[in-house]
Amino acid sequence: MNLEETLNWRYTTKDFDPKQQISEADMSQIKNLLRMSPSSINLQPWHFIIAETKVGKERMAKGTQGFFHFNEPKVTNASAVVLFCAKTSVNEDYLTHILNTEDKAGRLPTEDIKNGLFGAMNAFTNIHKYDLKDVQHWAEKQVYLNIGCFLLGVASLKIDATPMEGIDVKALDEEFGLREKGYTALVAVSLGYRTTSDFNATDKNPKARLPENELFTTL
Amino acid sequence: MNLEETLNWRYTTKDFDPKQQISEADMSQIKNLLRMSPSSINLQPWHFIIAETKVGKERMAKGTQGFFHFNEPKVTNASAVVLFCAKTSVNEDYLTHILNTEDKAGRLPTEDIKNGLFGAMNAFTNIHKYDLKDVQHWAEKQVYLNIGCFLLGVASLKIDATPMEGIDVKALDEEFGLREKGYTALVAVSLGYRTTSDFNATDKNPKARLPENELFTTL
Repeated sequence: MNLEETLNWRYTTKDFDPKQQISEADMSQIKNLLRMSPSSINLQPWHFIIAETKVGKERMAKGTQGFFHFNEPKVTNASAVVLFCAKTSVNEDYLTHILNTEDKAGRLPTEDIKNGLFGAMNAFTNIHKYDLKDVQHWAEKQVYLNIGCFLLGVASLKIDATPMEGIDVKALDEEFGLREKGYTALVAVSLGYRTTSDFNATDKNPKARLPENELFTTL
Repeated sequence: MNLEETLNWRYTTKDFDPKQQISEADMSQIKNLLRMSPSSINLQPWHFIIAETKVGKERMAKGTQGFFHFNEPKVTNASAVVLFCAKTSVNEDYLTHILNTEDKAGRLPTEDIKNGLFGAMNAFTNIHKYDLKDVQHWAEKQVYLNIGCFLLGVASLKIDATPMEGIDVKALDEEFGLREKGYTALVAVSLGYRTTSDFNATDKNPKARLPENELFTTL
């Protein structure tokens, strides 16, 4: 599919066919997609918990109890569920770790370039630490950027997705011991294949978007 | 290009060729991409200022003075610059406007469905208004999701992009009268075509990402 076809094909799936499984080759592409997402200063402030087994999805369904019970079938009937977790702090050790990752990849041929990059990473981080005081939100925004990239990317593979903010993040943080590891659950995205009876994913139910004249100012 | 090729081809461009312009057909696809992005409860809390002319890019460059002067050539040499703006508040009038947009598109065949959706929209918004008290961050996260979808989408068209948080949002808010209109500037994305001498976009400069064992927990 080209871009326009992918955008038209993509729907937030409300009803997964529990009998259809994503192939191993596609799961490998899905992981590559998560890993290759851009982020500000290449911060990569994320971790991904991927449930593919019945037991794994049952653990994930601990985030869809009580108020969020309406999302439970989207977890249990999916082929896989990706829990997007955000890093809860960004300190100099972590920035050094990212810097070393850049270095290992061969992106920092001289000490000057390495020092320059580290200075820029600290300068940007400090805007969020001291001026805006929003480091955690800044990190979470990068995770949302990854989610946006992810939703278009999986659609290009003709895999259906359901992004869910409607999850009990505290229950999932506890289930997976996330807070102790420096992460917190943010959004779950279920993956699989829509049923033919999915009310949301049909041409009879066209996507609703604000009109162009409200959205764009062209200069 | 397939997904893997697109991910490998995509780089944050550091050097645009000022002589290469994006075609009208591609600019039309770019607008469609911005418009069709998903968002939580279909909130679409965004507005896009698109500078395509020399005068438009000069106005955009008011956001790349002083501390952010290093980003100025990425604005002036780009073929087009998209300024992603976030809505600064979400009130019941706006939710009604979104509901009516869904209705016009034909997504709400009965009053029951319409009322159910409006209840859900309010319930989710109220989590952010009263429990998390983060409505503005929530709206901005949706804009970041759009940016992520956008960066992959334009890459699939073989158009280069440079996302920039490093802009003077206050200067841009003033230049475009955004705050009075209920928006604030968030991120600019320059679009165009890399030069062959762009140091960042070359196979010799491979993308650096954290290793899989740090990124993934598989269940």
